[in-house]
Amino acid sequence: MAKDHEAALLIAASEADANLFYATRFLAPDPFIFARIRGRNILVASDLELDRARVQAGVDEVVSSSKIAAKLKKRGVSIVTSAELVHFLFRERGVRHVLVPSDFPIQYADALRAKGYRLRLKRDPFFEERTIKSKKEVLAIVQTIRHTEHAVGEAVRILKKAKIRGRYLMYRDRQLTSEYLKQVINVALMESGCIAAHTIVACGKQGVDPHHQGSGPLLAHEPIIMDVFPRSSETRYFADMTRTVVRGKASPKLKKMYQAVKECQAIAFKQIRHGADGKKIHEAVQNHFVELGFKTGESDGRMQGFFHGTGHGVGLEIHEPPRISAASDVLRAGQVVTVEPGLYYLDAGGVRLEDIALVTQSGAKNLNRFPKTLEI
Amino acid sequence: MAKDHEAALLIAASEADANLFYATRFLAPDPFIFARIRGRNILVASDLELDRARVQAGVDEVVSSSKIAAKLKKRGVSIVTSAELVHFLFRERGVRHVLVPSDFPIQYADALRAKGYRLRLKRDPFFEERTIKSKKEVLAIVQTIRHTEHAVGEAVRILKKAKIRGRYLMYRDRQLTSEYLKQVINVALMESGCIAAHTIVACGKQGVDPHHQGSGPLLAHEPIIMDVFPRSSETRYFADMTRTVVRGKASPKLKKMYQAVKECQAIAFKQIRHGADGKKIHEAVQNHFVELGFKTGESDGRMQGFFHGTGHGVGLEIHEPPRISAASDVLRAGQVVTVEPGLYYLDAGGVRLEDIALVTQSGAKNLNRFPKTLEI
Repeated sequence: MAKDHEAALLIAASEADANLFYATRFLAPDPFIFARIRGRNILVASDLELDRARVQAGVDEVVSSSKIAAKLKKRGVSIVTSAELVHFLFRERGVRHVLVPSDFPIQYADALRAKGYRLRLKRDPFFEERTIKSKKEVLAIVQTIRHTEHAVGEAVRILKKAKIRGRYLMYRDRQLTSEYLKQVINVALMESGCIAAHTIVACGKQGVDPHHQGSGPLLAHEPIIMDVFPRSSETRYFADMTRTVVRGKASPKLKKMYQAVKECQAIAFKQIRHGADGKKIHEAVQNHFVELGFKTGESDGRMQGFFHGTGHGVGLEIHEPPRISAASDVLRAGQVVTVEPGLYYLDAGGVRLEDIALVTQSGAKNLNRFPKTLEI
Repeated sequence: MAKDHEAALLIAASEADANLFYATRFLAPDPFIFARIRGRNILVASDLELDRARVQAGVDEVVSSSKIAAKLKKRGVSIVTSAELVHFLFRERGVRHVLVPSDFPIQYADALRAKGYRLRLKRDPFFEERTIKSKKEVLAIVQTIRHTEHAVGEAVRILKKAKIRGRYLMYRDRQLTSEYLKQVINVALMESGCIAAHTIVACGKQGVDPHHQGSGPLLAHEPIIMDVFPRSSETRYFADMTRTVVRGKASPKLKKMYQAVKECQAIAFKQIRHGADGKKIHEAVQNHFVELGFKTGESDGRMQGFFHGTGHGVGLEIHEPPRISAASDVLRAGQVVTVEPGLYYLDAGGVRLEDIALVTQSGAKNLNRFPKTLEI
């Protein structure tokens, strides 16, 4: 990726930076320095992380930042910043050109440029190879998917058991709420070693906002969107799945929307393969919605119709390249992407269905098994 | 904070950026633009987030990015980047000077500088007022602390019930492991609506690495460090608590270490107050360890002794200003900080005790209630 004379540099907390975790497989809550110099991977660790890094990090060399700092102080450097540490590392290895991610912090960039380094920015995928999942990585994603399916299954089981009383759903003599169902899903996931944040259980009009997490009583005969995207705390790989269900009877419009979303999912799955352009797939989905009479745009002061992307890569981040959206992005075998068309109307509620596809040379493999049923 | 003619600018995903969440109280997984111009808070939202932002964001104005983009395209801008959106916003409001956080992404910084903007960097605390917690914020932290105490209590209950068989602990006829206890803690927290990641249950030598999460069988008569730092999924405020226990009998050295750590905690609590310098508190802790004969440094190729900071701010981030560490940082009333001295030796294991202090004009208030007992 980097030119011969160009070192790749990351300074971040690997808990928050998937590229850094990918490069080192070392998890730390505070920023540390990583450099790839002529194919050699070097990690600079503080005293706090030094020994753990030596054991856990998948790098060629772990360097002690406090040892460098001691040398620099002898040379008269009074305040040893991260840029000074990088400068020490680079000077003794003859590096002048640096490749950094486009979200590289400006404080380090300015300090390094002031020392004469030439920086070249690279947008994600910073490590191209990170988008292509190994068998082990696909397995990790599938494991998280299975745990997600189990958790959503628990929620569906409760919805099926719930009794309809007027507009509301009752479970164990209490009104069934979005909060309760989210907790059921999140606890089931934690029992499987998966961490779920921002789980969506959005009913009726709430579901018209694709990122509304949902709150309050769940209603009978209204669509309930469940969008669940946990990360395995062991492997750190994400899953992402959405199902829409109605406890009771769906309106005719909702049934048509559900059918349309299912068809659009199938259209996308049919087109996904090595070499396909995400933009064309997204347009095919948009066109099919239009053909079926589903309009998109602002109406009654709200966005309605289908106004988000068709899919995104999933791995060490919940949203990562490639995209199946309005921007061109050519798919490659080994990539793992969501397929999640949706329709959102104030007079009917929201419908979204989301599975995960493994891109192969000949097509797409759906890694999800969870059934799709509207009325339960 | 910003000069009259200087706009504050953030471009980030508020799920990952506490300053942006603090400024907007709007939670989104993808980057969006926030600007404070002459005291007016403006959020630029994509179609996907527009309606939710209008309802949820605590700002003065929500602007549609696609509406700006449409105007820019009419003016001949072919690719509408985030920098173009900012430029549109700033030009019509006469902004030329911009205050950005020190971790502002270089891609936006370079693009804005290329358009003639002068950027000034500000390190954390970007919003000074964020370090001073309101009553509501302190309450949110205390709530998360209570949930944490409950979860650690569950773990202690299991440890007490565990039977000692040789070196190992047995619970319900199985070997008790670090993994099991972490799951007990994490599930208990999730049941309380708190998300715990990287929970530490580290036994014996594992505990000598302060960030070792722990794995495998828990041993009798060895120290077990439990460091738990969940975030409330409702309020998004963190707690952070550490207890060290021995199931069985502690060695004489371990008892001395435990006593020393307790004393150092008390020393720090006694010195914390409005106006105190974190550096001096940290040095007092270091000095007391030295006085008691506990040495710090590399030995047998490992860092041993007390080699991390005494404390850090806690709030919307698990680590945030102010610090009680080797760097000067003056405490102010209303700040909330951890107090977590520790001692780590290969021949005895690790001991760390951590509570949370509310800084007041007259001293420190310990927000934790959980007892400190070594042998259980």
